[in-house]
Amino acid sequence: MALIESVPNFSEGRNRAKVEAIAEAMRMEGVYLLDRHMDADHNRSVITLAGSREALMEAVLRGIGKAADLIDLTRHRGVHPRIGATDVVPFVPIEGVTLEDCAQMARQVGAEVWRRYRIPVYLYESAATRPDRVRLENVRRGQFEGLRDEIATNPERLPDFGEPRVHPTAGATVIGARKFLVAYNIFLNTSDVEIARKIARTVRFSSGGLPFVKAMGLPVRGLAQVSMNLTDTDQTPIARVFELVKSEAARYGVAVLSSEIIGLVPKKALEDAAGSSLQLENFDSSVILENRLAAARAHVEPAS
Amino acid sequence: MALIESVPNFSEGRNRAKVEAIAEAMRMEGVYLLDRHMDADHNRSVITLAGSREALMEAVLRGIGKAADLIDLTRHRGVHPRIGATDVVPFVPIEGVTLEDCAQMARQVGAEVWRRYRIPVYLYESAATRPDRVRLENVRRGQFEGLRDEIATNPERLPDFGEPRVHPTAGATVIGARKFLVAYNIFLNTSDVEIARKIARTVRFSSGGLPFVKAMGLPVRGLAQVSMNLTDTDQTPIARVFELVKSEAARYGVAVLSSEIIGLVPKKALEDAAGSSLQLENFDSSVILENRLAAARAHVEPAS
Repeated sequence: MALIESVPNFSEGRNRAKVEAIAEAMRMEGVYLLDRHMDADHNRSVITLAGSREALMEAVLRGIGKAADLIDLTRHRGVHPRIGATDVVPFVPIEGVTLEDCAQMARQVGAEVWRRYRIPVYLYESAATRPDRVRLENVRRGQFEGLRDEIATNPERLPDFGEPRVHPTAGATVIGARKFLVAYNIFLNTSDVEIARKIARTVRFSSGGLPFVKAMGLPVRGLAQVSMNLTDTDQTPIARVFELVKSEAARYGVAVLSSEIIGLVPKKALEDAAGSSLQLENFDSSVILENRLAAARAHVEPAS
Repeated sequence: MALIESVPNFSEGRNRAKVEAIAEAMRMEGVYLLDRHMDADHNRSVITLAGSREALMEAVLRGIGKAADLIDLTRHRGVHPRIGATDVVPFVPIEGVTLEDCAQMARQVGAEVWRRYRIPVYLYESAATRPDRVRLENVRRGQFEGLRDEIATNPERLPDFGEPRVHPTAGATVIGARKFLVAYNIFLNTSDVEIARKIARTVRFSSGGLPFVKAMGLPVRGLAQVSMNLTDTDQTPIARVFELVKSEAARYGVAVLSSEIIGLVPKKALEDAAGSSLQLENFDSSVILENRLAAARAHVEPAS
């Protein structure tokens, strides 16, 4: 069976009842609610769903509708950039589907978001219709307030679906398809966010750092945080990112306090981190008891 | 469903056809053959099985019978200590069973080994009937040849099942129950095995080191190796052992070259290593996509 993940980001991270209501609206047969993360500083929630194609698309559409009912962007403040009540919705292939299948889902949902809710939609990453829309940062430039001013007059900001005006309270939504992304943050033992920003610049690909790493420095819980998206942990493993941040931090006389994974991480990414940190020779996941057992069972019971 | 692992050790590590025949004898419904490791220096094979209670006991019994047919201990030479054609058989709880359940299996199989094959059996570890039989080294003292001479005259060597005489060619077998054990070796970038021995003494519990760690220094592939058994990776995680060996090695001006896992490792032990090396906050295995998905599916489809 095809299994797709979707991780809608909603611009509400403080009012638990509203986030609950949005999650509840997305509950339906064939869709699993895997994770829910509220961040008060970001004033943003990230909900992780997985499911079959049709059910997942409908669940996401209902969530976007509920968010438009409950969130008013004209009153929204938070440290994380955003342009919409439902800010961004990626579709991610997990099992039995391609990235292009997910891009097709993004297009279908995008058209429907405009039709049902009159919220304009931009397509990004693998669903992008123009090279300058591949990167979310570009699409989100100026945030809600900037887009609101510019959308009607700047042809570059014409949405992929809908008319060139933001929804008055729900803004616009960015929908797309991408590979599995690990949201990984590292806290430093300093409140000096400038150090986190400098480290972010060294680490991220866009300013000459590691491939498949996006990074920014943020103040979180009174600490400097290097906030990252790892877009391909096969090519740039988590352990390598961690070691680079740690050694860069040391250059500023600062230490890593802790790190956190926001949302979920694929099993293989963590296994690779263990293999790397323990310097395991010829490590592969077949040395793991449970994997060996699953393989043995699959081999013995092919039709179950 | 209850799932138990068993790791019978057979005293044949050179003749592939014989090891194949023993493995083949253990093949039956409800039993998975997870791993097979032949060592010519040790002249010993280690076969890892998992299965349900009754099927696994019968499989192990058949393997012991086949080994008695094929292996003649009076002609066996190897660097690893042994007292029987089937030398040692641990039962290990994996899912839905306790250590005491496994001890019960050991007793039942022990009685049956004597009944079917007239091979005397000693119980060890959690199935031991006397404190001096908890440790395998004690039970195996003097090896096959020493036991053959002593068994009838020394009351301390009276078997737990059977009469006080070894089987003329198959010797005696040690059967018991223990927790999952991780065989973990660390290579140093030196050929000076004395350094590995010193580190082993610092690391292992018996000389004042970490709980649940057994260690010795060995020369392997021209390198000094700290060869370890980790008998409880929940209490003493692999990452802690690795870090201690690494920092002790540095005291001798030596570095860790690599490490290796022999056989299998439980998923949780590796996940913990990743969490620890990445300094992950509040890490637990539920952040892993595949685990979350399995849990969500089990919750939604309880009767499948």
